[in-house]
Amino acid sequence: MSREHLKDIQSEFDERNLPINQVGVKDISYPVIVLDKIGGEQHTVAKVNMYVDLPHHFRGTHMSRFIEILNRYRTGISTTKIREILRDMQTVLEAESAFFEITFPYFITKSAPVSKEQAKMEYICRLVGQSSVPYYMLEVKVPVLSLCPCSKEISEYGAHNQRSIITIQIKAHEKIWIEDIVAVAEQSASSELYSILKRDDEKYVTERAYEKPMFVEDMVRSAAEKLIALDGVLWFSVESENMESIHNHSAYARIVKTLKL
Amino acid sequence: MSREHLKDIQSEFDERNLPINQVGVKDISYPVIVLDKIGGEQHTVAKVNMYVDLPHHFRGTHMSRFIEILNRYRTGISTTKIREILRDMQTVLEAESAFFEITFPYFITKSAPVSKEQAKMEYICRLVGQSSVPYYMLEVKVPVLSLCPCSKEISEYGAHNQRSIITIQIKAHEKIWIEDIVAVAEQSASSELYSILKRDDEKYVTERAYEKPMFVEDMVRSAAEKLIALDGVLWFSVESENMESIHNHSAYARIVKTLKL
Amino acid sequence: MSREHLKDIQSEFDERNLPINQVGVKDISYPVIVLDKIGGEQHTVAKVNMYVDLPHHFRGTHMSRFIEILNRYRTGISTTKIREILRDMQTVLEAESAFFEITFPYFITKSAPVSKEQAKMEYICRLVGQSSVPYYMLEVKVPVLSLCPCSKEISEYGAHNQRSIITIQIKAHEKIWIEDIVAVAEQSASSELYSILKRDDEKYVTERAYEKPMFVEDMVRSAAEKLIALDGVLWFSVESENMESIHNHSAYARIVKTLKL
Amino acid sequence: MSREHLKDIQSEFDERNLPINQVGVKDISYPVIVLDKIGGEQHTVAKVNMYVDLPHHFRGTHMSRFIEILNRYRTGISTTKIREILRDMQTVLEAESAFFEITFPYFITKSAPVSKEQAKMEYICRLVGQSSVPYYMLEVKVPVLSLCPCSKEISEYGAHNQRSIITIQIKAHEKIWIEDIVAVAEQSASSELYSILKRDDEKYVTERAYEKPMFVEDMVRSAAEKLIALDGVLWFSVESENMESIHNHSAYARIVKTLKL
Repeated sequence: MSREHLKDIQSEFDERNLPINQVGVKDISYPVIVLDKIGGEQHTVAKVNMYVDLPHHFRGTHMSRFIEILNRYRTGISTTKIREILRDMQTVLEAESAFFEITFPYFITKSAPVSKEQAKMEYICRLVGQSSVPYYMLEVKVPVLSLCPCSKEISEYGAHNQRSIITIQIKAHEKIWIEDIVAVAEQSASSELYSILKRDDEKYVTERAYEKPMFVEDMVRSAAEKLIALDGVLWFSVESENMESIHNHSAYARIVKTLKL
Repeated sequence: MSREHLKDIQSEFDERNLPINQVGVKDISYPVIVLDKIGGEQHTVAKVNMYVDLPHHFRGTHMSRFIEILNRYRTGISTTKIREILRDMQTVLEAESAFFEITFPYFITKSAPVSKEQAKMEYICRLVGQSSVPYYMLEVKVPVLSLCPCSKEISEYGAHNQRSIITIQIKAHEKIWIEDIVAVAEQSASSELYSILKRDDEKYVTERAYEKPMFVEDMVRSAAEKLIALDGVLWFSVESENMESIHNHSAYARIVKTLKL
Repeated sequence: MSREHLKDIQSEFDERNLPINQVGVKDISYPVIVLDKIGGEQHTVAKVNMYVDLPHHFRGTHMSRFIEILNRYRTGISTTKIREILRDMQTVLEAESAFFEITFPYFITKSAPVSKEQAKMEYICRLVGQSSVPYYMLEVKVPVLSLCPCSKEISEYGAHNQRSIITIQIKAHEKIWIEDIVAVAEQSASSELYSILKRDDEKYVTERAYEKPMFVEDMVRSAAEKLIALDGVLWFSVESENMESIHNHSAYARIVKTLKL
Repeated sequence: MSREHLKDIQSEFDERNLPINQVGVKDISYPVIVLDKIGGEQHTVAKVNMYVDLPHHFRGTHMSRFIEILNRYRTGISTTKIREILRDMQTVLEAESAFFEITFPYFITKSAPVSKEQAKMEYICRLVGQSSVPYYMLEVKVPVLSLCPCSKEISEYGAHNQRSIITIQIKAHEKIWIEDIVAVAEQSASSELYSILKRDDEKYVTERAYEKPMFVEDMVRSAAEKLIALDGVLWFSVESENMESIHNHSAYARIVKTLKL
């Protein structure tokens, strides 16, 4: 039995006159290769969502074609490649609009501040492209250390501090490197984090954080100032979530700003 | 030492001229009571986010006040009460704008279709209020059964089917009951789900689903038609995520529509 | 068509001679009421797993009966009630052995150390009963603050600290209250946590933590000493997971000890 | 200031006489390379836990050394390499016993049954080694399709089916390939899953599943039979969790069997 003999239910005419904004595949795990700033390729494992619009007169889309496209592009994902993927989705799925979203862990090799020992740190990234707008959206989650200025000020000694997650989203059409977004966040905290710290490094990080206390509000303001100054950023959102060491919930702050959209 | 003698670091003047859109507490778990359609109160456990804006000349907000407000309102959460909570947040935190978001499991007692045996089904709900807009946003996640029309049509016998999650979001200012949103979703699937099914019920559900095959696209269109007809809905989004039984990823569709905003 | 006419496939004879250790329902969300130490009832929402063994000559069990039993007992869950539930499961499902596992958030009202302001703190609990052993297993997860002794010692000022999760599991046949397990964990950390802290409280907690630095190893040893002294404990495991504020991973320690099994 | 001058708090004498069973690092994300059956190397991203015991007279361990060891072995993880990692941990951390646990997504390229189109499927794997026992534990999670025999038997047409997760754990000292465990699980279900299915493939999978209905109990028995016959397996556990398409909870079964330990 050949494929032609099977009825194409998805192409049936639909009479409800309701165009569908997004239809496609969601939450597929796939091994991908992303480009990094130092010129190399980085193997990682991504969660991918791919959608197109569905004109009101079609009943369904062809789900297998999304995976075929993912197969084609999986070895070279980048902020600039995303436009080519979107165009391919529009053509292959005969769609007006296309949406591509990919979330992946990205690793940067860091040196400890004193011992210079090297190890890798993970940053969770998300890249979104839409054919309807000329820019992409890049999100980077950067774990950092925050030390509370109020706690430092009012206490005889010590100050509560904790791990925080700074989440930066930017919209841009030119290439902006994940590494540069990470730098903005790490410079906007009481201290950056490391996977390896020897004793001298731990002393250095502890003292640096105590010398640079920052509220959750200070952190997003500091990052916002740096994002305003970053070439090519059209819009940004910066959030910080401090997993408070004195509470079982988080302190949170967010700034959103349109620069050039 | 009395509280007055402790320096109020949060009220310090901030010179960076960057107003903060949202600052507050995130991901606090709290026991709450929500009202249900049949006139009763439902005890549940919620995750709550509460934010206010921070004018550019203040350095920080007062985090403890958010929890005090949550304590005050936790025994009577509803779509209409949310405006009172927002006003209280604005007053207590001396803020221009307030944001309140609460996510909780909600249970409805259902009777099996033939045996009439009763058990409870869980629906995850999220309610969001913002002082800057005159409506609230209510999201309800409804697990249902979807049976693939293509698989049914092309196969000699059987048809793949699976659990799907229909997520409906509505904006409204009048009261809309969770139960009514659940009904929209459950009527827009191949079958609704139950916590208890005896053998006669299982036969009934299996046959009903086979008689009513629906693509992920059909489900969101069907729900959209019902939401357009529902009194008081100003805007809606309806998504379905089918956890495909033949794949390890989901099929997905979404319709978004503004009616009266 | 009446139920009797439907073939009972689950009772068919199975010839593979492989007894099944556990069969039943998993991950059902259900509203339950648990008893607390101060004599009240606490409404919460649980995830429940219920299994029985299946003799090698039966092909399947009857899944709907598990939910019927859960319905019967959901309004009075306690460490002592669990034996009655297990006996009921054995009878109704004609099984040699039964297994019941329930995980739920539990709330304790706490007063801040100086201001005495009250708010609720969440502790995730898990209770497991098995008909084959005469004791139950109770697990309580307690978020606390840990301050690093090494960081304090080597630094001119400050010390990194963070939220930690102490997980205590005990086996017992007599009633042991969740509140007593929470107390063991909270006294074994640099400080306990609170949902509300005013400025005086924050000063108190910050200084107390700095005065009581503890490694992850110290915390599990301190809790172990207290569990050894707690009446009725037959076996325990105590783990601490410190979500290090200087790293993006956790420091971890565990002690397991059989006392009277 | 050189490292030697900083006091080594971790090596202090501890007088509580409580040996710690496990101490180390938990939940570190790291890029690793694992070996696959067809002779290649597979890049993936792992979560790693590494613990050693701590004799009662030491106060703490040296956390940074765990990451140094991980760095050394990350490009060649395999079931046989794990013994070398454990020995290195014992030496470097001066410990009696060592524990190494790594969880990672693993991808296998599969061909659709009729069209032969190729795409990758994800299987979540976990590998655990302990110096105190001469074998490793390998866990593989395999998503499959299950079709209910009861629903098929009692219904005029159709049968409910759904995605299930078969989790197989084996203990072994010889090399056993992930691919062979996946094959056991996929042959023990109503059908295996694929990332790409064209229309002819979907017809094939739908009909095959309808022809091979299996209860959750049947699936674990079928897998158990195959694991008993698999060379080198000393012990196994096989679980299936069926994410029922007619319920919002799972049906579950498990068989555990010691063969040669």
